[in-house]
Amino acid sequence: MNAEFVNPFLSSFINVLQTMAQVEVKPGRPSLKKDAIARGDVSGLIGMVGPTAKGSFSISFDKELALNVFRLMVGETIEELSEDITDMVGEVTNMVAGGAKRQLGEKGYEFNMATPIVVTGPNHTIKHQVDGSKVLMPFISEHGKAYIEICFNQ
Amino acid sequence: MNAEFVNPFLSSFINVLQTMAQVEVKPGRPSLKKDAIARGDVSGLIGMVGPTAKGSFSISFDKELALNVFRLMVGETIEELSEDITDMVGEVTNMVAGGAKRQLGEKGYEFNMATPIVVTGPNHTIKHQVDGSKVLMPFISEHGKAYIEICFNQ
Repeated sequence: MNAEFVNPFLSSFINVLQTMAQVEVKPGRPSLKKDAIARGDVSGLIGMVGPTAKGSFSISFDKELALNVFRLMVGETIEELSEDITDMVGEVTNMVAGGAKRQLGEKGYEFNMATPIVVTGPNHTIKHQVDGSKVLMPFISEHGKAYIEICFNQ
Repeated sequence: MNAEFVNPFLSSFINVLQTMAQVEVKPGRPSLKKDAIARGDVSGLIGMVGPTAKGSFSISFDKELALNVFRLMVGETIEELSEDITDMVGEVTNMVAGGAKRQLGEKGYEFNMATPIVVTGPNHTIKHQVDGSKVLMPFISEHGKAYIEICFNQ
C-alpha cells in the first residue's frame, strides 16, 4: 500500500474529533500485521474507489468514546448505542473520509467514496479483505478509545 | 433508489450459493422500512461507486449458514467463526457483488467495487447510512439464514 495514503486519514480523524467534539485523540503504535484485528462496539466503514487503487477505511469506537463524542458534539447525554449514536458515527466516518479524500486529491490521488455503513455489537471485529498491506492505528483519549484501519490494494 | 439495482444482487447471491456450495437460499419478504436492521453473526460489506449513483451492499450470515457454506464449499468442518470463515464470507461477498456489477453493466449501469470488509460478532447489526431508500431481503435455507441489504443514493 502506498504509504502516502495513510496520513490523510489519521490527520483528518484527529481534526474532525477536535473540531466537532473538542476531543483530542492521540495516535498509538501502528500495526502492519496481516492478522491484526480492530475491535470496537460501534464502527463506521466506507469503501474508496480510485482509477487504479481501491480500498476501505474504518473507524471502530469503544462505547465510551462513541457516547462521549455524541455528548460533546450534540450536547445530549445518551447511555446506550442507539440510532442517534450510529448516525453520528456514520457522519463522522463520512467527514473523516471526505477530509482524507481532499488531502489525497491535493497529492494527485483521486478517489470516490461509497456510502458509509455502521456496525453495532459489543466487541465485534472488523477485517478488511484486501490483497495488500493494511495499517491499523489505535487512538487513545481521555474520553475513550478508537481504532482506525486503512487498506488499499496498491 | 432505482428498483433495477436490486434484482442483480439477489439473483447473484442465489447463484453464488447454488454454484459454490449447492445451497438453495429462498428470498423471504423484502423490507423497505427506513429503520429495518440486518442482524447476523458474520457479515460481508462492500462499497459500490458509479459515475452518478453510489451505495453499499452487505450480506449478513447467521453462524449456522456461514459454517455450513464453508463446509459445503471447502469440504472441511469448522465449529467457530474463525479467520477461514471470515475469508470465505469476504470472498462470497466479492463474488456476489461482482456478479451484480456484471448484470448492472449489461443494463447500462456501471459501478466500481471497493474491497470487501468482514465483520464478526454475535448478533451484530448493520446500518447503511444513505440518503435514499434501501432494501433488506431475508433469505432462508435448510442450512441457515442470511440477510442481504442494498442501498443506493439514487
